[in-house]
Amino acid sequence: MTGRLLIGISGWDPEGWLRRFTALVPERRPLLAGPGADLSEVTHVAAWQAPAGLFSRLPRLEAILSLGAGVDHLLKRDDIAGDVKIVRMIDPDLTGRMSEWSVWQVLDHHRQGRLYRDQQVRAHWYEMAQPAASAVRVGIMGLGVLGLDAAAKLASLGFRVAGWSRTPKQVGGLETHAGAEGLSRFLARTDILVVLLPLTPETDGILDRALFEGLARDGVHGGPIVINAGRGGLQNEADLLAALEDGTLKAASIDVFRTEPLPAESPFWGLANCTVTPHAAASSDPDALAGQVVASIAALERGEAPAGLVDRLRGY
Amino acid sequence: MTGRLLIGISGWDPEGWLRRFTALVPERRPLLAGPGADLSEVTHVAAWQAPAGLFSRLPRLEAILSLGAGVDHLLKRDDIAGDVKIVRMIDPDLTGRMSEWSVWQVLDHHRQGRLYRDQQVRAHWYEMAQPAASAVRVGIMGLGVLGLDAAAKLASLGFRVAGWSRTPKQVGGLETHAGAEGLSRFLARTDILVVLLPLTPETDGILDRALFEGLARDGVHGGPIVINAGRGGLQNEADLLAALEDGTLKAASIDVFRTEPLPAESPFWGLANCTVTPHAAASSDPDALAGQVVASIAALERGEAPAGLVDRLRGY
Repeated sequence: MTGRLLIGISGWDPEGWLRRFTALVPERRPLLAGPGADLSEVTHVAAWQAPAGLFSRLPRLEAILSLGAGVDHLLKRDDIAGDVKIVRMIDPDLTGRMSEWSVWQVLDHHRQGRLYRDQQVRAHWYEMAQPAASAVRVGIMGLGVLGLDAAAKLASLGFRVAGWSRTPKQVGGLETHAGAEGLSRFLARTDILVVLLPLTPETDGILDRALFEGLARDGVHGGPIVINAGRGGLQNEADLLAALEDGTLKAASIDVFRTEPLPAESPFWGLANCTVTPHAAASSDPDALAGQVVASIAALERGEAPAGLVDRLRGY
Repeated sequence: MTGRLLIGISGWDPEGWLRRFTALVPERRPLLAGPGADLSEVTHVAAWQAPAGLFSRLPRLEAILSLGAGVDHLLKRDDIAGDVKIVRMIDPDLTGRMSEWSVWQVLDHHRQGRLYRDQQVRAHWYEMAQPAASAVRVGIMGLGVLGLDAAAKLASLGFRVAGWSRTPKQVGGLETHAGAEGLSRFLARTDILVVLLPLTPETDGILDRALFEGLARDGVHGGPIVINAGRGGLQNEADLLAALEDGTLKAASIDVFRTEPLPAESPFWGLANCTVTPHAAASSDPDALAGQVVASIAALERGEAPAGLVDRLRGY
């Protein structure tokens, strides 16, 4: 008998997801993980911030489908047996939104949005020096689906783009660097750093003082800029704060934090050279995601590896 | 004997231009238009805000090379004989900067930059609904070099782009409208209007209340947005102000005004829903422009029509 699809979601409209999946795959008898739910026939879970311990209560569990691009929220748990497959969503819509936010923030720094907005408040008309995009070196950390899409779009606007990844990657037309030994060369040629890495034990806290100090200081914008749309866990927040305050970094745009929502007393809110957005870089289109989940389950049942199948050792 | 090249420039570093042209074409004996200058052998002028009456003092004048993309500053003068050729610069660098500013402003409205910046000031963490780019209809007025470049870049970010031009144009992959009869259909499908028109007697004041009222009001952003990087003369500024104040327009980004610098007492500075930049959308790279001027003169002397040769009747 076809196993059931469990909606293991906290704080993101579980009933809406139940309706959506019931319309798409009624034969999987979707259900919510509430009290008294019969979990004995559950083979698949559509998951986002699933309650602790949920997965160890599922005797027939085969696969967990993460409703986000990141799976760090799953890999850090201790209730998922070793043979359970994990799939993350690779959603063109989500990819487009992430690039959109990244391009927006690169342009806002490049075109000196903050200074022009300050001038407007003072009714002051003054055109500042305007470096060409071709004189600005953008570096993308993370060359997965998100990083490559952002790289292509920033290159088409004329920026000098290079990328860094953990393991070497060849990408047509893109200057790439890899691994610990390639990192310092990559940083030394980067004026604006766009971070689109997954959060893994290896990338946890990778954005620290040593990394900030390795960025180029001879660029046309007079100091390095960091843009993080990945995960808050990538950044050492004490180091980031100090670097923004002491001028090691000229500016930053940060969409993700170790504690979200960012507490009202956080000093990041008040930093004039730091743009804060509330984990809003890429909100998902629920209908698109639901379709992806259904297609991924079908692929798994045909014995195929869906596009977002996670290598649990590698971490993404 | 080779005619001389006159630098007819006000307020934009005439000495810098003299040095630049002297290095490039010493045989044309470049000179400034100061008092006592011998203008008798001048055949070409590199011009930007040239002093009134200058051109009628040049008995051998053959062509005027405008140092900007627009030539309205030349066509409204009465000191240019009918047989003098006018060439405007078509500079890939300038085109890229103009698209950069346009994309930046479209994204800032689309991603609700103003609201998120207000939230940051209040240390408020709240993710707003985020329409997909594919649900937003961008309309480009003006399908010259600038408009087509902006259209391509906005389309590659996922926006639904269409264009309008005075005379019909076929552009692969782009929905186009033309002329007075096509304008209302074009406006009715446009949520964000990007204006990259030349200023001519026909386009003077084209951005008026009737046009604003013709824009789509059923879009995902809840009201039309106007982005003008063309010329201030395109807009009826009383109409624009009223439309921004009474909600006919949701918001605007305006880089150009009828009076520049925009006077400190102008109400545009203080409008919360209007982004003002100081004619800064695309500053020119002087070296690139100087090279273009030299190449255009050479083309004219070979009897060819350089790319930016102006049809003085049409106005661009």
